[in-house]
Amino acid sequence: MSFTIQEIATALGAPAEGDLDVRVTGAAEPATARAQDLALAMDPKYAGGLAEGGAQAALLWAGADWRAMGLKAAIFAPRPRLAMAGLTRMMDPGPEIAPGIHPTAVVDPTAMIGAGAAIGPYAVIGARAQIGANARIAAHAVVAEDVRIGDDALLMYGVRICARVKIGDRFIAQPGATVGGDGFSFVTPEKSAVEAVRETLGDAGASRQQHYTRIHSLGSVTIGDDVELGANSTIDRGTIRDTQVGSGTKIDNLVQIGHNCQIGEDCLLCGLVGVAGSARIGNRVVLAGQVGVNDNIFVGDDVIAGGATKIFSNAPAGRVLLGYPAMRMETHIEAYKGLRRLPRLFAQVAELQKAVSKLAQRD
Amino acid sequence: MSFTIQEIATALGAPAEGDLDVRVTGAAEPATARAQDLALAMDPKYAGGLAEGGAQAALLWAGADWRAMGLKAAIFAPRPRLAMAGLTRMMDPGPEIAPGIHPTAVVDPTAMIGAGAAIGPYAVIGARAQIGANARIAAHAVVAEDVRIGDDALLMYGVRICARVKIGDRFIAQPGATVGGDGFSFVTPEKSAVEAVRETLGDAGASRQQHYTRIHSLGSVTIGDDVELGANSTIDRGTIRDTQVGSGTKIDNLVQIGHNCQIGEDCLLCGLVGVAGSARIGNRVVLAGQVGVNDNIFVGDDVIAGGATKIFSNAPAGRVLLGYPAMRMETHIEAYKGLRRLPRLFAQVAELQKAVSKLAQRD
Amino acid sequence: MSFTIQEIATALGAPAEGDLDVRVTGAAEPATARAQDLALAMDPKYAGGLAEGGAQAALLWAGADWRAMGLKAAIFAPRPRLAMAGLTRMMDPGPEIAPGIHPTAVVDPTAMIGAGAAIGPYAVIGARAQIGANARIAAHAVVAEDVRIGDDALLMYGVRICARVKIGDRFIAQPGATVGGDGFSFVTPEKSAVEAVRETLGDAGASRQQHYTRIHSLGSVTIGDDVELGANSTIDRGTIRDTQVGSGTKIDNLVQIGHNCQIGEDCLLCGLVGVAGSARIGNRVVLAGQVGVNDNIFVGDDVIAGGATKIFSNAPAGRVLLGYPAMRMETHIEAYKGLRRLPRLFAQVAELQKAVSKLAQRD
Repeated sequence: MSFTIQEIATALGAPAEGDLDVRVTGAAEPATARAQDLALAMDPKYAGGLAEGGAQAALLWAGADWRAMGLKAAIFAPRPRLAMAGLTRMMDPGPEIAPGIHPTAVVDPTAMIGAGAAIGPYAVIGARAQIGANARIAAHAVVAEDVRIGDDALLMYGVRICARVKIGDRFIAQPGATVGGDGFSFVTPEKSAVEAVRETLGDAGASRQQHYTRIHSLGSVTIGDDVELGANSTIDRGTIRDTQVGSGTKIDNLVQIGHNCQIGEDCLLCGLVGVAGSARIGNRVVLAGQVGVNDNIFVGDDVIAGGATKIFSNAPAGRVLLGYPAMRMETHIEAYKGLRRLPRLFAQVAELQKAVSKLAQRD
Repeated sequence: MSFTIQEIATALGAPAEGDLDVRVTGAAEPATARAQDLALAMDPKYAGGLAEGGAQAALLWAGADWRAMGLKAAIFAPRPRLAMAGLTRMMDPGPEIAPGIHPTAVVDPTAMIGAGAAIGPYAVIGARAQIGANARIAAHAVVAEDVRIGDDALLMYGVRICARVKIGDRFIAQPGATVGGDGFSFVTPEKSAVEAVRETLGDAGASRQQHYTRIHSLGSVTIGDDVELGANSTIDRGTIRDTQVGSGTKIDNLVQIGHNCQIGEDCLLCGLVGVAGSARIGNRVVLAGQVGVNDNIFVGDDVIAGGATKIFSNAPAGRVLLGYPAMRMETHIEAYKGLRRLPRLFAQVAELQKAVSKLAQRD
Repeated sequence: MSFTIQEIATALGAPAEGDLDVRVTGAAEPATARAQDLALAMDPKYAGGLAEGGAQAALLWAGADWRAMGLKAAIFAPRPRLAMAGLTRMMDPGPEIAPGIHPTAVVDPTAMIGAGAAIGPYAVIGARAQIGANARIAAHAVVAEDVRIGDDALLMYGVRICARVKIGDRFIAQPGATVGGDGFSFVTPEKSAVEAVRETLGDAGASRQQHYTRIHSLGSVTIGDDVELGANSTIDRGTIRDTQVGSGTKIDNLVQIGHNCQIGEDCLLCGLVGVAGSARIGNRVVLAGQVGVNDNIFVGDDVIAGGATKIFSNAPAGRVLLGYPAMRMETHIEAYKGLRRLPRLFAQVAELQKAVSKLAQRD
C-alpha cells in the first residue's frame, strides 16, 4: 500500500501544500519517521522531532510553516484526532483472512452467508445463522445457531456469538469477545440473606444462604449498528427479553455486561467496566475504566463517570460522577481533599475541646 | 417445543386454573406476549401489561383474578423467582451440539468418555482424561490430559480445562472460561521491596526489586458438584496442593481466582471479582461485582460483600461488608454520609476556632 | 519423573543430609505427603505436619533436626520461596504437547518455525510469522501474520498473538491471553463532553456526545524477554508506535493494558489490573490486584500500589500507594481511620458548637 499526499488530503478533506505527488507507505511519529512515512506533527510541540526524523511529508497543525521544517509537502489538520481517524482507516491493512470460506471452517448447510465473505480456519457457523455481506470471520470464531449478523462484520480470533443473538451492521469484535453467555441468575427456595440485606441495608437477619437453583436465560442479546466489542469482553443473554446494546456504542476489553441490561446509543464503556444485571444506561454515557454499575438501576443520558466510579443508585441525565460510592465530580474532589486532611481536623477538634473546657471552667 | 399449562403447573408444583390444555411455546413479558407465549406477571404491577399483549395464559401472583384479565388459563407462583427457575429450565433449548463426537474433534485414544456425550467441532480431549455421562462439549473446548469431570457437564465454546483438574457433576462453564492456568507466583533472590512494604505497611526501605524467578504450579484445581463458571473467568492451579472450589458455588463472568485459594460451598462470586492467591473463603459467601479479596486472608461463612468492596483483612462469619477498605455496611453508610459533608465540617471547625479564640481574648 | 535427594539438592544449590539416594516423584505438604513425596516444611510451624504424613524426605528450614522428625533425608533451604522456584521447575511436567507439528495445525508455508517446536491441534500460524527454537504452542493458539516470537515460547490453549507483534525469548502466555487487539480509540467530529469535563474537572457544558469515529491502530505491540501473560489478559496494539512491555515483566490473569502504554522492566501486574491508554509505567513497579492507572500518566520506577489503588495522576519513583484515589500508604491508613470515626467527630463538633454558643451567651 502506498498513497500520494494528494490522495490522503482528499480522503481527509484537508488542505495540502507542496509536492502532492510525494508517496508514503505509512505514518510515524516525527522523530522516528523515515522518508517513506507521513510524519504526524499536529501540534507545534512535535515540530522539533521533525528535524530528527527523515520524513519528506507531514500532517501538521493549521498554519505550520512546512517549508521551514525542510518538508516537501504537508497536510493541515484542523481537528487532529479526526484527521487521525481518516488517516489510520486508510492505512490499516486489517487482519489477513483469505477471501472465501477456508476448507477447515465448519459451516452448517442451513447457514446463510452474504457475498464477499472471508471465513478463516476452524471457524464454526451454526444452523440457520445469517451473516450479511463482506463478513470477515477470523480463525476459531463461533457464530452459533440462529444468530443474525448484519453487513461488514469483523469477528476476530475466537470470538463467540451464542445462539439467537441479533447484531446490526459493521459490528467489530476483538479476539475472545463473547456475546450471549448465560445470565448469572440464581434463586434459593426461601428468602436468602442477600435479599434480607438489600431490604435492611446491612442486616442479614436469621436467614441463611441455601443451595442455588439456576434461572435459565431464554432471552438473547440484541445489538445495534456500528457497535464494537473489545477483547475477552462478555455480554450475557437476557432472562426473558434480550439484553440490549444500542447503535454506535463502543465497548473496550474485559468489560462485563450482565443479563437484561439495556445500554443506549453512542456510549463508551472502557476496560474492565462491569454493568450488573438489569441495569439501564442511557445514550451517550461514558464509563471510564473499572467503573461499576449496580444491578437494576438507571444511568441517565450523557452521564460521564470517571475511572473506577462505583454507581450504586440512579444517576440523573448529564451528571458527571466520580468515586466510591459515586458522587458528583466536584463533591468528590472536595470530599477527598478533606479526607486527606482528616487527621489534622481530629487534632484541631481535640484542641478546641480542651480550650472550651478550660473556658467553661474559668468562670 | 410446546407445553400445556397443565404440564408447566405440574413441573413447577404450582396450582393452575382455567383451560389447562392451552399450549404455549415460550415465555414473554406481558406487554409483548403473543398468543403462543406464557405471559410472566408475578406481581400486580405487571397486570396492566397483560391487556397490551396477546397472551392467553399467564404465570400470575397468588390470588390474581385471571378471568378479569381476559386470560384462558393461569398458573400461580407463590415464590416468583423460584417458579422462574423451573419454567426457564423447561423452556431452555440449550446450545445445539450434535449427539456423538464430531469427526473433527481430536480425542486422545486413552481418554474415557461416558455414555451420551455430545462433543462439537474442533474440541480437543487429552490423554487419560475421564469425562462422565451426558457431557455436552461445544466447539473449541479443551479438556487436557488427566482431567476428571463428572456427569452432565456442559462446556461451552472455547472452555479450557487444563491438566489434572478434577471437577464434580453437573459442571457448567460459559465460553472462554479457563480452569487450571498457572498460578502467579514469583520470587526474587533477595528480599523484595514488596516484602518490606508488607512488613512495615508502607516503607519499601532500601530493598529494590530484582529479576523474578517463577514458582511453577505443581498442584491443580479441585471443583465440587453443581459449580458454574462464567464466560472468560479464570481459576489458577495451586502451587503444591490444589486450588479448591466447593460444591454449589456459582461464579460469574471475568472472575479471577488465584492459586491455592479455597472457596467454600454455595458461594456466589459476581462479575469481575478478584480473589488473590491463598485466600480462604467460607461457605455461603456472597461477593458482589468487582469485589476484591486480599491474598492469604480468611473470609468467614455467610459474609456478604456489596459491590466493589475491597477486603484487606480477615472477615468474621456473618459480617455484611461494603467499601474500600471494607467496613461493616452500616459503618460505611454513616462514614460516607460524613465524607460528603466534610467540607461543611471544616468550615464549622474554622468558625469554632475563631469563636473560641475570641472568647479566650475577651476575658 | 523421579529424582534423588542428591539431584534436587544439587539443582537447588542447597545442602542436604542423610540418605541422598532416596527417590521422590513429587512434592507435597507435610501432612498429606506420601513416601514418594518430598515434604515441604521450610518453617518450624510445619514440623507437626511431618509426623502426620508419610514422607521419607523433606525440604526443611536451615538447622532443622531431620532425624528427630523420623526422616531419612533432608534438604535445607535458606530462602524457602527461592528453593520452591527451583524445585517446582524441576517437577513441573508442563502441558502435554506432542513434538512436531500436529497434522491439523494450519501453518502458512511462508512461516518460519525454529527447531524443536511442538505445535498442537488446530493451532494457526500466519504468513511470514517467525517463531524461535523450542516453541510449545498448544491447541487453538493463533500466531498471526508477521509476528516474531523468540526462543522457548510457551503459548497455551487459545492464546492469540495478532499481526506484527514482536516478542522476545522465553515468553509464556496462559490460555486465552491476547496480544495486539485494536486500541480503544475514538473521536467525535466536534469537541466531546468528555474533553470538556477533562478541561473543567466536572463541567460537561453544552457539548454533547456525537457519533464516534474509530481511530485504527497502525502500531503493534513489542514485548521483551522473560515476559509472562496471564489467562484471558489483553494487551492492545498502539496507534502509531507500538505498545511496549519491558523484559522480565510478569502479568497476571484478566489484566488490560491499553494502546500506546509503555510498561517497564521487571514489573508485576496482578489480576484485573487496568492500565489505560498511553500510560507510562517505570521499572520494577508492582501493581496489586484490581489497581487502575489513568490514561496518559506516568508511574515512576519502584512504585508499589496496594490492592485496588486507583492512580489518577503521576506517581513519583519509589512511592508506596494505596486507595481511591491513590494516596501514600501511610496517609491512606490515617485518613481511613479518620473516616470510620467521622460520625463521632460530627457529634463532637455539634457539642462544641452548643458549648461555645452557651459560653458566648453567658457573658
